[in-house]
Amino acid sequence: MNKPVCLVIGAGAGIGGHVARRFAREGYHACLVRRSDQAGLDQRVAEIEAEGGSASGYLLNAVEEGSIEQLVTHIEAQVGPIAVAVFNLGAQIGDRGLASTTLKQFEMGWRLATLGLFRLAQVLFPHMEQRGQGVLLVTSATAAMRGNAGQHAHAAAMGGRRMLCQSLNAQFAGKGIHVAHIVIDGAVDAPDTLGKMLGPERFQALRQQKGLDHDGLLLPAEVAQTYFHVAHQHRSAWTFELDLRAHSDLAWWNQSSSAALK
Amino acid sequence: MNKPVCLVIGAGAGIGGHVARRFAREGYHACLVRRSDQAGLDQRVAEIEAEGGSASGYLLNAVEEGSIEQLVTHIEAQVGPIAVAVFNLGAQIGDRGLASTTLKQFEMGWRLATLGLFRLAQVLFPHMEQRGQGVLLVTSATAAMRGNAGQHAHAAAMGGRRMLCQSLNAQFAGKGIHVAHIVIDGAVDAPDTLGKMLGPERFQALRQQKGLDHDGLLLPAEVAQTYFHVAHQHRSAWTFELDLRAHSDLAWWNQSSSAALK
Amino acid sequence: MNKPVCLVIGAGAGIGGHVARRFAREGYHACLVRRSDQAGLDQRVAEIEAEGGSASGYLLNAVEEGSIEQLVTHIEAQVGPIAVAVFNLGAQIGDRGLASTTLKQFEMGWRLATLGLFRLAQVLFPHMEQRGQGVLLVTSATAAMRGNAGQHAHAAAMGGRRMLCQSLNAQFAGKGIHVAHIVIDGAVDAPDTLGKMLGPERFQALRQQKGLDHDGLLLPAEVAQTYFHVAHQHRSAWTFELDLRAHSDLAWWNQSSSAALK
Amino acid sequence: MNKPVCLVIGAGAGIGGHVARRFAREGYHACLVRRSDQAGLDQRVAEIEAEGGSASGYLLNAVEEGSIEQLVTHIEAQVGPIAVAVFNLGAQIGDRGLASTTLKQFEMGWRLATLGLFRLAQVLFPHMEQRGQGVLLVTSATAAMRGNAGQHAHAAAMGGRRMLCQSLNAQFAGKGIHVAHIVIDGAVDAPDTLGKMLGPERFQALRQQKGLDHDGLLLPAEVAQTYFHVAHQHRSAWTFELDLRAHSDLAWWNQSSSAALK
Repeated sequence: MNKPVCLVIGAGAGIGGHVARRFAREGYHACLVRRSDQAGLDQRVAEIEAEGGSASGYLLNAVEEGSIEQLVTHIEAQVGPIAVAVFNLGAQIGDRGLASTTLKQFEMGWRLATLGLFRLAQVLFPHMEQRGQGVLLVTSATAAMRGNAGQHAHAAAMGGRRMLCQSLNAQFAGKGIHVAHIVIDGAVDAPDTLGKMLGPERFQALRQQKGLDHDGLLLPAEVAQTYFHVAHQHRSAWTFELDLRAHSDLAWWNQSSSAALK
Repeated sequence: MNKPVCLVIGAGAGIGGHVARRFAREGYHACLVRRSDQAGLDQRVAEIEAEGGSASGYLLNAVEEGSIEQLVTHIEAQVGPIAVAVFNLGAQIGDRGLASTTLKQFEMGWRLATLGLFRLAQVLFPHMEQRGQGVLLVTSATAAMRGNAGQHAHAAAMGGRRMLCQSLNAQFAGKGIHVAHIVIDGAVDAPDTLGKMLGPERFQALRQQKGLDHDGLLLPAEVAQTYFHVAHQHRSAWTFELDLRAHSDLAWWNQSSSAALK
Repeated sequence: MNKPVCLVIGAGAGIGGHVARRFAREGYHACLVRRSDQAGLDQRVAEIEAEGGSASGYLLNAVEEGSIEQLVTHIEAQVGPIAVAVFNLGAQIGDRGLASTTLKQFEMGWRLATLGLFRLAQVLFPHMEQRGQGVLLVTSATAAMRGNAGQHAHAAAMGGRRMLCQSLNAQFAGKGIHVAHIVIDGAVDAPDTLGKMLGPERFQALRQQKGLDHDGLLLPAEVAQTYFHVAHQHRSAWTFELDLRAHSDLAWWNQSSSAALK
Repeated sequence: MNKPVCLVIGAGAGIGGHVARRFAREGYHACLVRRSDQAGLDQRVAEIEAEGGSASGYLLNAVEEGSIEQLVTHIEAQVGPIAVAVFNLGAQIGDRGLASTTLKQFEMGWRLATLGLFRLAQVLFPHMEQRGQGVLLVTSATAAMRGNAGQHAHAAAMGGRRMLCQSLNAQFAGKGIHVAHIVIDGAVDAPDTLGKMLGPERFQALRQQKGLDHDGLLLPAEVAQTYFHVAHQHRSAWTFELDLRAHSDLAWWNQSSSAALK
């Protein structure tokens, strides 16, 4: 294949899916990866193809030993060189306080968000280093910079990953690999993200009751614009870290959300 | 005028001039402001016009009482609504330690970098608030986050300005005004910036001696790409803060530079 | 005088006064400085002397040219070597949004909090450097790290001062001068601090209404314990920055306080 | 036992051992825990007893399932209520770049530093919460705030733990549990810490060659003073985070150390 590859690990209907689509529109072959939901995955690929783009979908349990490693090796060998990788796996396991967070949940958050990124870098960076270029974009959250009450698994996984991004950047920037840590500071307007938190019905009800539309949520198609920009910055002016947030804080949402903790 | 206005305060041959040019290429009327050097200013304007763009130049002593205020009022009334303002005044007064920094230098750094931004916001934001939109991009430096030995005036001015950007963002984001704090983390490949620090001859000599070309410096034309992108982010996905740095650290430059302090 | 001197600039009934008292108890001669209120100043000095301590009081307009410089020179010459200086001047001018903050207020915040510290360091550090030791403790606030809506003067002054503390530390730690930036993260249980914000009556009313006693406020006598500890850390284990906050967040106070902005 | 218990997990000849000793001197029963070296452990206990203090030693593999949990349960039941816990396990596995860090090392760093703290909090905090008081001091490192080249395992583990400390503090401060994150910013003058990095011979050689004595290293007995102070802050003035560093940066050490990476 002549197209450069954009690999998106964690490509659902939110940020990941929109980023894949954005890159596909610009001539990348998008490799979309998610844990389950073959139908949803096919739909994402079909949407891209309907726009004239090129994409392929992969179901993958990213915490499984060797899974990310095999996928990257396969894509590099069979599909094409991965120019851009987007790591979009979260660790928001809906934790609610210390007593209710199990060791398994705490470990799973780390396996997904932190170890997963380390494993991706280990298998991908030698390829990129050999080519003297490559991009790794990591979707992060406010929890990477501020641990909130009750969100122990999320905070620990995100905080560890942020420092990992820094140490990767410190080792590999000079070798042409651009690592960017993108802090999503707010709720994304995506069915599955919100569904995990409040349930879609409750969220819709809240939105209607407050008389707001989408304003105050991060729109994933707009988020994807900045992912694309950062991936194409000239190497004389790279961004390592930036935040993305809605102009309006959606304060009522944040309050509802944290109120649920008490 | 039908064109939206991009006002650049601090528009020399470095970041400011390139940002003005970048916006002018996309249909903005660029208002370039600098303290002195009418010839240099005319040259910037001529370059923009040679590319088919539209621009005007203003000499302005930004620390003079009322200067920024009158300029903004004039542009809003006579030229057009300021859609984007870029505040590109630095405070690097070449300070070298506590004993050698005069009160006047310390105050000048603050008047230029911190108070100047406050004054700009006071006169500009009511216009933007009324229109429900507007962008303010602030060129900052690493010193805003880490005060280095000897750079007291610079650190104090930059650190104060960063917090001011946060407080402005906190008050005005919900009203449609996008404030972004852009941390330039390294040396820019611009004659006047480097000239101020080392003298151009010494810098060229250092570069040749080290066998490096421009690699490791921030290229202002590339920096301008990100300014343009940030200014056009959708209000559902705004960046408040980001860094820009060269992929290669130009470690030798940083060492030469700090060695000069000892 | 054989006693080491502890100079406290900003010594009222809150943190400053209690810090002076704490040091006086341990054998320091405390020099208490405040802008006005001779009676209050005399009372602080009398309290210290009643405990067997030694102190003197000075009325000083710290923003006046030469004022801090003359005081330090006088104390060094007539009272004794200043072993510890505590800079306890705030910049909370009760600012309420961009439109209502005057240039004069904005400047005054900086003159008091930022320039004042720079001037103190300029006159004091040569003495301390010659002795190869000395301590400078700076009372700061959360605003030094996070600019809140409306508090533009406060945020800019505090943020600039934090970076100044860093640059001073970077230049002078190796010469035996210990600079510490102490972030007071919350409301202090001091009549004048609270009086400035809400008025004492309104604050008392709020406290009673909420059924809280002092819990949730920072008690200045307890704050002073940590000031004393930090000033006496061995030079192999110095703290540059630490926060102090009440165990209970006094969330109702913070909400009342920010609600006043809207 | 009538004495309050101070539990130190990670009590060797460095910070941990000195902290245990410091608390024992003030009337605590110190429970010293380390992975191996019964003789070294006995020596720490004997030193404390020789000073008239009271202590007991435990060998424990902290990453083993249930190990911390059983120890805490045992001490609470048989020795006495744990008033202060000090978590002093590091994650510096001597990692040297991405390719040379094994998955096992990366996981071990997390199990030790991050998961270990989570497990300690889970078993200990219910006891402390019931008593309405308790202290948890966590020894951290600069890597928790800045990920350096090559130190991926260390950075990820420390960064995750810092956010975990924040989320624990956010949930439990109001319940009387004081969590403090203590950033040790430099090399500690302890045989085993330095031995792990450079080997004691090479380090001694370097020190002699540079003509320095201990200056520039953190002395663990002095570090322990601040641990003791923080543990006894009144709940109206708690520190969540502070750094400790030597007044002199020991720049030559840091350069030697990072030079080893290249």
